[in-house]
Amino acid sequence: MSAASLISPPLTLAEIPQPQILSLGVLASGSGSNLEAIAQSIRGGALKARIQVLIYNQPGAGVKDRAERLGIPAVLLNHRDYASRADLDRAIVETLKQAGADWVIMAGWMRIVTPVLLDAFPRRVLNIHPSLLPSFRGVGAVEQALSAGVKVTGCTVHYAVPDVDSGPILAQAAVPILPGDTPESLHARVQVQEHQIFPLGIALAAQRERDI
Amino acid sequence: MSAASLISPPLTLAEIPQPQILSLGVLASGSGSNLEAIAQSIRGGALKARIQVLIYNQPGAGVKDRAERLGIPAVLLNHRDYASRADLDRAIVETLKQAGADWVIMAGWMRIVTPVLLDAFPRRVLNIHPSLLPSFRGVGAVEQALSAGVKVTGCTVHYAVPDVDSGPILAQAAVPILPGDTPESLHARVQVQEHQIFPLGIALAAQRERDI
Repeated sequence: MSAASLISPPLTLAEIPQPQILSLGVLASGSGSNLEAIAQSIRGGALKARIQVLIYNQPGAGVKDRAERLGIPAVLLNHRDYASRADLDRAIVETLKQAGADWVIMAGWMRIVTPVLLDAFPRRVLNIHPSLLPSFRGVGAVEQALSAGVKVTGCTVHYAVPDVDSGPILAQAAVPILPGDTPESLHARVQVQEHQIFPLGIALAAQRERDI
Repeated sequence: MSAASLISPPLTLAEIPQPQILSLGVLASGSGSNLEAIAQSIRGGALKARIQVLIYNQPGAGVKDRAERLGIPAVLLNHRDYASRADLDRAIVETLKQAGADWVIMAGWMRIVTPVLLDAFPRRVLNIHPSLLPSFRGVGAVEQALSAGVKVTGCTVHYAVPDVDSGPILAQAAVPILPGDTPESLHARVQVQEHQIFPLGIALAAQRERDI
């Protein structure tokens, strides 16, 4: 059995005009595989962008080492140091502005964002979620899909909005769920597609903004 | 842009053991394209089954002519002639049993079925729905997907249960939503996949029953 996938819109980055170099700020909480994928897409010339800064919230998160290897400045903003989500987001906005970031890329950012961040970068905060939204919002989306017994799941790049995993969708990828799949095997299959559609979704958001 | 699709489980009928000839009764309300797809799958030898009877509920439905062309006995059970859903389902069960059907295939059956039908054919009533369940249950699933702005939708073969579009899933297919899609163009793309996964889902249900 093959594990073919389906990406939609069925475009490659080469098919999307990218007249401007985008300045990205990345927020991440985990290992940073999406940071790596975006950085590699930039290095290969497919995505016209620069990553100005990585902000991470977990001391010791793998993404910090990843950023250092990639030569990306990494700033720790530990959510435990802030009295509220809004206070954390104010620090994030300040850090992003100082770094010269125009777009905010939530690459596995496990914090709920507030209007403080969203209003500072209107229609420029993008998130990735490991399901075919609107199915399986929230945490444990891969596990939710396995428990529900669906045969197809995937991932979604969308604009962040105050409601979690709910903003307008930019790109999606579908993958099969195979007999014997574990959360780990399925998550790995979904992540391969995340790494494809996140750079695609970023380029599509910039294109949509120019077309408005 | 291609319009590739993804079927899961990624199997063909030739890969599923089919030691028995299944006796199917088909329920349909519309044009009967799924009846046609199942009949052609049987004729081509891919699905080991017989269609014993078509039951339709709309006088003048296209599926009646389709059944006649295919040599399938067609019985009109007009829901307006019955006082309740349960009464209609009692007539359906009687017609199916008389025709020798062991499996019930809801191929675009636009009536809510009751435990009268479900309990008469336990785990042998299958439905198809034009979305990737659990997204977009109920009527107008293709329009719901377009309105939601998703980039991937599809169709689902599942066991029928008292809740609409909610039973355990047997097979799903994903298709892209393309720029400029109308409900008609998208529905046509989904239907191509329905015609693939409905015979597959029937064979999988029979296999699952043998494996229990």
